Amino acid sequence: MSTHSTYALSGKQFIGGQRIASGDAELISLRADNQQPTGYRFYQASLTEVDAAAQAAARAFNVYSQTSAEQRADFLAAIADELDALGDDFFAFAAQETALPLPRLTGERGRTSGQMRLFAELLRSGRVHGAKIDSALPDRTPLPRPDLRQYRTAIGPVAVFGASNFPLAFSTAGGDTAAALAAGCPVVFKAHSGHMITAELTALAIERAVQKQQMPAGVFNMVFGGSIGADLVQHPAIQAVGFTGSLQGGRALFDLAMQRPQPIPVFAEMSSINPVVVMPQALAQRGEKIAQELVSSFTLGCGQFCTKPGLIIGKRSAAFTQLIADLQMRVNASPPQTMLNAGTRDHYLSGLQAWDQHPQLHHLAGSRAEHAHLAVAQLYQADCQLLLNADPLLQQEVFGPVAIVVEVADQQQLLAALENLQGQLTATLLADEEDLGEASALAQLLTRKAGRVLFNGYPTGVEVCEAMVHGGPYPATSDSRGTSVGTLAIERFLRPVCLQNYPAALLPPALQDSNPLNLLRLVNGEYTRAALHSPATH
Amino acid sequence: MSTHSTYALSGKQFIGGQRIASGDAELISLRADNQQPTGYRFYQASLTEVDAAAQAAARAFNVYSQTSAEQRADFLAAIADELDALGDDFFAFAAQETALPLPRLTGERGRTSGQMRLFAELLRSGRVHGAKIDSALPDRTPLPRPDLRQYRTAIGPVAVFGASNFPLAFSTAGGDTAAALAAGCPVVFKAHSGHMITAELTALAIERAVQKQQMPAGVFNMVFGGSIGADLVQHPAIQAVGFTGSLQGGRALFDLAMQRPQPIPVFAEMSSINPVVVMPQALAQRGEKIAQELVSSFTLGCGQFCTKPGLIIGKRSAAFTQLIADLQMRVNASPPQTMLNAGTRDHYLSGLQAWDQHPQLHHLAGSRAEHAHLAVAQLYQADCQLLLNADPLLQQEVFGPVAIVVEVADQQQLLAALENLQGQLTATLLADEEDLGEASALAQLLTRKAGRVLFNGYPTGVEVCEAMVHGGPYPATSDSRGTSVGTLAIERFLRPVCLQNYPAALLPPALQDSNPLNLLRLVNGEYTRAALHSPATH
Repeated sequence: MSTHSTYALSGKQFIGGQRIASGDAELISLRADNQQPTGYRFYQASLTEVDAAAQAAARAFNVYSQTSAEQRADFLAAIADELDALGDDFFAFAAQETALPLPRLTGERGRTSGQMRLFAELLRSGRVHGAKIDSALPDRTPLPRPDLRQYRTAIGPVAVFGASNFPLAFSTAGGDTAAALAAGCPVVFKAHSGHMITAELTALAIERAVQKQQMPAGVFNMVFGGSIGADLVQHPAIQAVGFTGSLQGGRALFDLAMQRPQPIPVFAEMSSINPVVVMPQALAQRGEKIAQELVSSFTLGCGQFCTKPGLIIGKRSAAFTQLIADLQMRVNASPPQTMLNAGTRDHYLSGLQAWDQHPQLHHLAGSRAEHAHLAVAQLYQADCQLLLNADPLLQQEVFGPVAIVVEVADQQQLLAALENLQGQLTATLLADEEDLGEASALAQLLTRKAGRVLFNGYPTGVEVCEAMVHGGPYPATSDSRGTSVGTLAIERFLRPVCLQNYPAALLPPALQDSNPLNLLRLVNGEYTRAALHSPATH
Repeated sequence: MSTHSTYALSGKQFIGGQRIASGDAELISLRADNQQPTGYRFYQASLTEVDAAAQAAARAFNVYSQTSAEQRADFLAAIADELDALGDDFFAFAAQETALPLPRLTGERGRTSGQMRLFAELLRSGRVHGAKIDSALPDRTPLPRPDLRQYRTAIGPVAVFGASNFPLAFSTAGGDTAAALAAGCPVVFKAHSGHMITAELTALAIERAVQKQQMPAGVFNMVFGGSIGADLVQHPAIQAVGFTGSLQGGRALFDLAMQRPQPIPVFAEMSSINPVVVMPQALAQRGEKIAQELVSSFTLGCGQFCTKPGLIIGKRSAAFTQLIADLQMRVNASPPQTMLNAGTRDHYLSGLQAWDQHPQLHHLAGSRAEHAHLAVAQLYQADCQLLLNADPLLQQEVFGPVAIVVEVADQQQLLAALENLQGQLTATLLADEEDLGEASALAQLLTRKAGRVLFNGYPTGVEVCEAMVHGGPYPATSDSRGTSVGTLAIERFLRPVCLQNYPAALLPPALQDSNPLNLLRLVNGEYTRAALHSPATH
């Protein structure tokens, strides 16, 4: 469909290793900075194409779910290599589509290939198998115990919905795709309409890795189009969903998935206001620095982070009043930034309007002059009563460079206010040594509310590692038992299977007596890498 | 409410350590063998009482979720001791209410206290914490890595719905209650109307353990009544649901839980027909024994097991024809048995009626004479086409002593028939050495269909151990990623939390540098029991 570039973009669906499209190309790719067409158009997937993509994933599943962890590790590493080989043209397109600055995009590419490699490492470590063996006890009374062995296997084809704000790390080859592929689950990815060129170029990179590693056609599929998400989630071949986006969108897909004849698990990462509590001693020691860091954090990337600290809470004091003044000053000095797309900016403006009309929310800082295509940082203050009453407007995430300050009377009111918060991705305490007495109860409370609790940091960096949790109680996500970042993310797409009295010849390597993968296995309640002695030689 | 016994049964709800009832006692306890009143009556819980029970659990949660794993282990062990101390009177009541024979009930008590102790062991082993540490990398470029530590914490108060067929092991103090309490989650248990005396005596045993171990009032609550399940699942304080019962009942509660403003995880174990494939060589070697063992398994306990093998499949042959004849002979010789209650028997009879009316299902054996309160074993044969067409009637679990035989033409038809099965708790292959060539593909297919795949055994025993999976794809359960038996069951009620840059003084013991619990922790990607060296001394 290219009219302006040497890139071979077809704008078609990726289905079972083929490029397919029927009808006319109707989806127009737009530049983020001026909403003008980039010159590329994409085909809206038809219902038939969505069905074909899900069927292709289902066919691939039977082969792909039986690949070894080592084979999948090689595949993920090959995808990482292809991502790392993407050149300047790719980044130029991504920057055009998202208005994200080049250093941010190249950094995000490193994160994206890095998390592919982290899952490859997890697969090579063998921890993914969850191998457990309870040996037969033929002489036990009153009943003998059979030989029982447990491992984990892929749940089935996964539908993945990427986010607009991370066109690489939470999109086509992002964390959900990486986790699903690592688990042995083929993926049907719904391309985000905000960065379709980026999506197509990334999908082509994945396709190259599929071919190099001789993975089954259909292990990765991608469809374009706005309204096809519902059809995809309802397709009987789809067995799980990964989603990053708005509460409204995530909940709608969740509801459809739960109303299926066969409901399927949905991990939707949706909405969080990421409270930050500023404790008195920390405020006294470094109030000015905190003001600077807070504004940096909530305006970073134009506030387009799921972990943006949107709520700043502290006890009424002269120092807190000064903090508010410092925040105002810095917000007023923040330069306007371009948002990801017109829709994001419209949502930002309508979010601000709703706050403007609320009698207990007061605008503190930020120019309200209209800047075409740009968003301006804003600061609000809310009456503490809004938290105490669990006012829904205050708890609603407004995506963009804005935060709300809340003053509380004392520790008791602080605890009561935090108790009324909904589930969060993160909660942060800025606290010095002398604050720790009071911080202890707060931290315990916040651990019930959030997937990640931070001290003296800002939530807008999400490290990709073993210990990360990017999740949390509803509405932060649809299932607090999962995470979409870090190695634990794979568990969303695995299910346990028990093999009872299996013939040695049919046991998967992870569960064979000789332990050929050298796994750390739970054998009769103890972790060991030792081989099992067969009763005959024992 | 006792009129005939020395037992101090009040028939009231257990709420926050109190016995509470308003209104009139309306729930009449019935004998299973003749549907006559036992002489005991119970109070239907009011909406206010359901609310009070959920609130009591929520209050207890703040304290109970902060107890150490060691404290919870002691509590579970104390419950086990109380269960083991239940005397002859208890079993006499349980036998009256369920018609289950005494040896079965005393065996089930051992299993029930045994699984409490297994979870206590799991808590003492420390594996429950899932401790992972990624150390700070202050010098990393371009950005330093903060210190990140992950552990698992209780999800919140859990509503548990017990099953009629295991009045101990899947009821008041059964596996779901044990898993929830082990995880740090208070329980609101809905007593099953089929064994309310047993439920009250068991709840009193739990209450004694609560007091001895000084656990918070409200850590265990129990409400009586048929229609209150919906209110319980919709109560905002309830954060997860464990259910064992029918597909209809489980799905109804699942739907309510998913439609809540805040949806919550539901693990419902519901419906499975547990296919058994009889392979040619095994049939040739021991056909008569297989017939005897199959009939024993599907008539065991009057067929009232979730894992009852309800579908027997084999390739058309003289030996398979002989197997069918042997099955018929043994079914016709099976003595009638008493079912758990009138409702169960009504379901059994209406299930048989539906099959009788199906043109492609043929009755093969079993007297159809009416026996008051008794159920008679039955055998049917179905045309293989029913499996190939995924006929819903054939796949519907009929609880009771009945199985369906299906003959297939060849291996290809066998694979096609099995491919059309819905999700199962178990799938079994009866196969000898020479069958293994063909069994390999079958086993791989069945691993996609079931939570447990057995060779040369019968599914009706469910071992309580590390490696067990009592779960499986829908409709066997509502979430194939869980199990309701075995230590893995605890994971349904835990969620991960990441602590970032936490002050040493506030870290939970599982994540402290010195590793005071001597846990095997994943530290920077490697398992170790070693303490962490602080950067200062390193």
